[in-house]
Amino acid sequence: MSTAAATAAPTFITPDALLQHWQGHRRLTRRMIAAFPEDKLFTFSVGGMRSFGELASEMVGMAVPTVRGMVTNEWDEFAMGKATSLSELLRQWDQSTMELDALWPKIPAERFAETLTAFGQYTMPGYALVLYCVDNEIHHRGQGYVYLRALGIEPPPFWER
Amino acid sequence: MSTAAATAAPTFITPDALLQHWQGHRRLTRRMIAAFPEDKLFTFSVGGMRSFGELASEMVGMAVPTVRGMVTNEWDEFAMGKATSLSELLRQWDQSTMELDALWPKIPAERFAETLTAFGQYTMPGYALVLYCVDNEIHHRGQGYVYLRALGIEPPPFWER
Repeated sequence: MSTAAATAAPTFITPDALLQHWQGHRRLTRRMIAAFPEDKLFTFSVGGMRSFGELASEMVGMAVPTVRGMVTNEWDEFAMGKATSLSELLRQWDQSTMELDALWPKIPAERFAETLTAFGQYTMPGYALVLYCVDNEIHHRGQGYVYLRALGIEPPPFWER
Repeated sequence: MSTAAATAAPTFITPDALLQHWQGHRRLTRRMIAAFPEDKLFTFSVGGMRSFGELASEMVGMAVPTVRGMVTNEWDEFAMGKATSLSELLRQWDQSTMELDALWPKIPAERFAETLTAFGQYTMPGYALVLYCVDNEIHHRGQGYVYLRALGIEPPPFWER
């Protein structure tokens, strides 16, 4: 903890528990990626939306750059993941998982409550930037559930993390 | 704050900010309900899944009972919302919004970190029970986005809360 102010704030969830919560969601998202047939992951969608492969690549492009920015308060460009196969996407996913675990403890404790401007355009508290990544992942993964159902494939249970 | 231990825990997000974050999501979910044509809300789905009206009724059935249980640590049965029309569902939604605002400040500060057994069967920390409600709402609302797109209707933007 860097400041008395940060330690004195009431706590809904600690930073450590939030990372574990997110990594639980990320394990489920990984199972979702693996559940898609290789030939559908980057091609199938419903209603003209993006494929689940594209949506998961967006998640890869957001997660580590956001957490790296939380550590340094310097913000790279978003770089969309460029995976074009299921196995490549899973490799990128696993690489991100390791990087998140390594970077997260380096975020200064007070950063979560600070108002930040991420990537030159998104101004909000640090906690909201992180939650945007988590919520965006849950949102798009929910869309992936519909894609799998429409393909006649049973998705992994939502509550297993 | 009821205990020194609760005040001393590092903070990712405060209880007040988490409620505001959730109510922001709830405003978006309300716009999603209102975006459905009346004759599709309880009938349309993709891939054999539940209608968005049924999914939103599940959200109504979870939110207030979970937060009431967080206040008292006594747990009612889940009672699924019983709405059968768009206007009735919106009335239930708005009633839940008011009740959440009234109940939330009464949750004892230490409850979020305690391990609880909700509804006789879900054992996890208090923060995880609340996040399950929020995450389940985002998950199913993401499915609603696919339904609207499949109906040719532009959904409200994900980032507007």
